[in-house]
Order: sequence, then structure tokens, then C-alpha cells
Amino acid sequence: MIFTLQIKVMPLKELLDPQGKAVMGGLQNLGIHSVEDVRIGKHITLQVNAHNAEEAKAIADNACKNLLSNPVMEYFEIIVE
Amino acid sequence: MIFTLQIKVMPLKELLDPQGKAVMGGLQNLGIHSVEDVRIGKHITLQVNAHNAEEAKAIADNACKNLLSNPVMEYFEIIVE
Repeated sequence: MIFTLQIKVMPLKELLDPQGKAVMGGLQNLGIHSVEDVRIGKHITLQVNAHNAEEAKAIADNACKNLLSNPVMEYFEIIVE
Repeated sequence: MIFTLQIKVMPLKELLDPQGKAVMGGLQNLGIHSVEDVRIGKHITLQVNAHNAEEAKAIADNACKNLLSNPVMEYFEIIVE
């Protein structure tokens, strides 16, 4: 059975996010002043072949820990659809 | 009032996603063979100062159309938390 998993990989809250800061400057240059903070990370959609949702989530967790995220700078969240 | 909005910006389904293909190759090299497809986009978290959720969403929609996404190659989805 194929499961679709949505993974969000974001910079840790304690760290500066220079890409987010740059986008915030860009928004202000465009006249959008009501945005108070911007943080930018990755969004990954996986199609996983597994017997059940728990197994699919475990495979995604393994993929995140080994390839998709850098635990020194990022955290991740997995949602099984 | 401050609203937190989660924005997902992904490559259009009709287009190739070379970054996703590369990650899929990496997963297979790591011995993770049950992943059938990978697509990679951006995840953006905005803190927006607005009177209500509709206004916050309209501001984010404007920001996405003007700066955060490229409609030729990407689509976006906004979730107000």
C-alpha cells in the first residue's frame, strides 16, 4: 500500500535563519509590512510503500535522520496523510 | 493579533523535480528501497499581524504571489494555525 507523507524540515528555533531574514526584507520592499517573522525550510513529500501507517512513518523517520535533515541545524515533523 | 501561517511551495505535479530525483537516488544508496517518489519544495512559516484569520491569509496569499512562489514552476498552499 502506498502512503503519502508530508515532511517539514525547518531551521531550529534557536538559530538565525538568514534566508528568512532576506525574504522579510524583500516583503518590506514590496510594501508588505504586517509580516513580523519569516522562517524558511524544506517541504518534502514522500510516497512510501508500506503495510501500515506506522511502518511508513518509521521509514520516513529513518530517511529524515540519515539524509533529509541535519540535526545540528534543523528539526523535522512527519505527517502521514 | 499575531497569526502563524504555514506555507508549502511545491514544484508543479507536471514538472520534473531534479532535487527530488537526486534525493531518491540517495535514499536507495542508503538501502531505503520502499520510497517510491520524492518531491522537494519550500516550507515557509510566517508570523502575520492582522485583525482576523482571513486578513492574515490574504496577506500571505499576496506575499506568495509576489515573492515566495514562481507560478510558472510552483504551486502553494496556505494553512492558518
